[in-house]
Amino acid sequence: CCTILCYQSEVINCVTFPSPACMSEQQLLKPSEWSYCDYFWADKKDPQGNGCITGFEILLQKQLKGKQMQKEMAEFIRERIKIEEDYAKNLSKLSQISLAGQEEGTLGEAWDQLKKSLSDEAEVHLKFSSKLQSEVEKPLLSFRENFKKDIKRFDHHIADLRKQLVGRYAAVEKARKALADRQKELELKTQQLEIKLSNKIEEDIKKARRKSTQAGDDLMRCVDLYNQSQSKWFEEIVTTSLELERLEVERVEMIRQHLCQYTTLRHETDMFNQSTMEPVDQLLQCVDPARDRELWVQENKTGEVRPVDVEI
Amino acid sequence: CCTILCYQSEVINCVTFPSPACMSEQQLLKPSEWSYCDYFWADKKDPQGNGCITGFEILLQKQLKGKQMQKEMAEFIRERIKIEEDYAKNLSKLSQISLAGQEEGTLGEAWDQLKKSLSDEAEVHLKFSSKLQSEVEKPLLSFRENFKKDIKRFDHHIADLRKQLVGRYAAVEKARKALADRQKELELKTQQLEIKLSNKIEEDIKKARRKSTQAGDDLMRCVDLYNQSQSKWFEEIVTTSLELERLEVERVEMIRQHLCQYTTLRHETDMFNQSTMEPVDQLLQCVDPARDRELWVQENKTGEVRPVDVEI
Repeated sequence: CCTILCYQSEVINCVTFPSPACMSEQQLLKPSEWSYCDYFWADKKDPQGNGCITGFEILLQKQLKGKQMQKEMAEFIRERIKIEEDYAKNLSKLSQISLAGQEEGTLGEAWDQLKKSLSDEAEVHLKFSSKLQSEVEKPLLSFRENFKKDIKRFDHHIADLRKQLVGRYAAVEKARKALADRQKELELKTQQLEIKLSNKIEEDIKKARRKSTQAGDDLMRCVDLYNQSQSKWFEEIVTTSLELERLEVERVEMIRQHLCQYTTLRHETDMFNQSTMEPVDQLLQCVDPARDRELWVQENKTGEVRPVDVEI
Repeated sequence: CCTILCYQSEVINCVTFPSPACMSEQQLLKPSEWSYCDYFWADKKDPQGNGCITGFEILLQKQLKGKQMQKEMAEFIRERIKIEEDYAKNLSKLSQISLAGQEEGTLGEAWDQLKKSLSDEAEVHLKFSSKLQSEVEKPLLSFRENFKKDIKRFDHHIADLRKQLVGRYAAVEKARKALADRQKELELKTQQLEIKLSNKIEEDIKKARRKSTQAGDDLMRCVDLYNQSQSKWFEEIVTTSLELERLEVERVEMIRQHLCQYTTLRHETDMFNQSTMEPVDQLLQCVDPARDRELWVQENKTGEVRPVDVEI
């Protein structure tokens, strides 16, 4: 019974599927891999329009969306770069401001170093932004320049094969109808012969039988061409969806790697930033009001001889 | 000889100093401390004008400059606060931008966390700026509100004492001149008596001697007052300059302490910043293209039944 049922099939959008009762018979091509090539065979009703969207188009749309996401991530990183550049510019400008530049002695040294630390911090953030650009933004942007072209090529190629399939399915239908007509004609002639024997009718039957056989052969040929077409389309869908799958893995891995690079650069920035504070800390440890007084007094003293009483 | 020399003195701007030969005799009041009270006894020629600036005024000017430096440091910190606020605002704004918000699966989660980390970073920098304000800028600004008033009070007090000293020195000079006049008169009368003995002249000599003694007493009294005045001024200079010295130590220590607070806050910022990256790192470790494919396929699949050949 089942064997017989499995030979039954239903055609949807000119693609021939086994009848629902036999579905469970098919093994996945790549079980436990959630491979694209196993899950997008049917077409899907377009939710808004009345049209249909093929499973393969859904795969292509994912790729285009992925490309867009990657571009948007690059834009996001670009914004971060700008923020870092602004921050660095402001820190650097502040470090050059002369505020409290006249503070003297050990406190003055610590203060000068504190101001200098801002220009070091600025350097760190500039380096961060420049590395973000070369090691994150640029790779995210430049990845798969030809991607859109490739997608278009895939799209056209598969669509052409699908169109051929549609054409060949129409040919099958036409040949099936022609065969039915021929068989009906043969049947009619056979009935006529039962009513009245005649050489003419026997000739007609022979002719009709020949034509019917011919129509049968035509149908066989059309079915064969259709099956060839479907098989070619099938193969190309499998190959291309595996290719898309590989590209998607590559995309995700590539993005992951560059986002990891982003966090590495951020960690480095914190580390370098921390080191900009060390000389300030050291000089603050050395601040000594007594030493500052000594330096200032040595430079500014007016006289150390004290007044004495007048004697007459 | 030396003892005699040490009684010799020279007066500069109405202040009486021992003569140069005796300078080495004086011990510093606070040796090895470079105390203000030991080094600012003389007045100083004003480099541009012809006027004089007292040693004590130089001390006061240092205090005013120190106050100004402290104010400028607070302004500098204020600028840093603004820079941090801007930076935080920009990071926070960027974290809310929807760029690549449609990325899905484990990569999407890592991306969302990366965006969220910016708002965490923004928080860290906001906290830094707010602590800079309360723990560095405000204390630097609010320190010694009454300082200028105090300085003015010191200035007036010491200037008044110095004015008194000048007045009393003038009185000494005047008394010294009066004594000289009286002595000259007494001498004249004595010469007259040598030429011609007379009761009238003897009476005059007695009177002149009395007046001379009186003038001598006057001078003694004026010198005494002058010395009292100089001694009072001396004491006040010592007391006040020790006070200024204490204030300067306090200022330097206070600034040092708040600049240390600045570096502590900077270190904390780096530390907290580093922690904002941890969840991003963790999610990036979990990015898995296979898992993402599974999630996406489960949600978007169109059909897993494969086409089959048409059988007639």
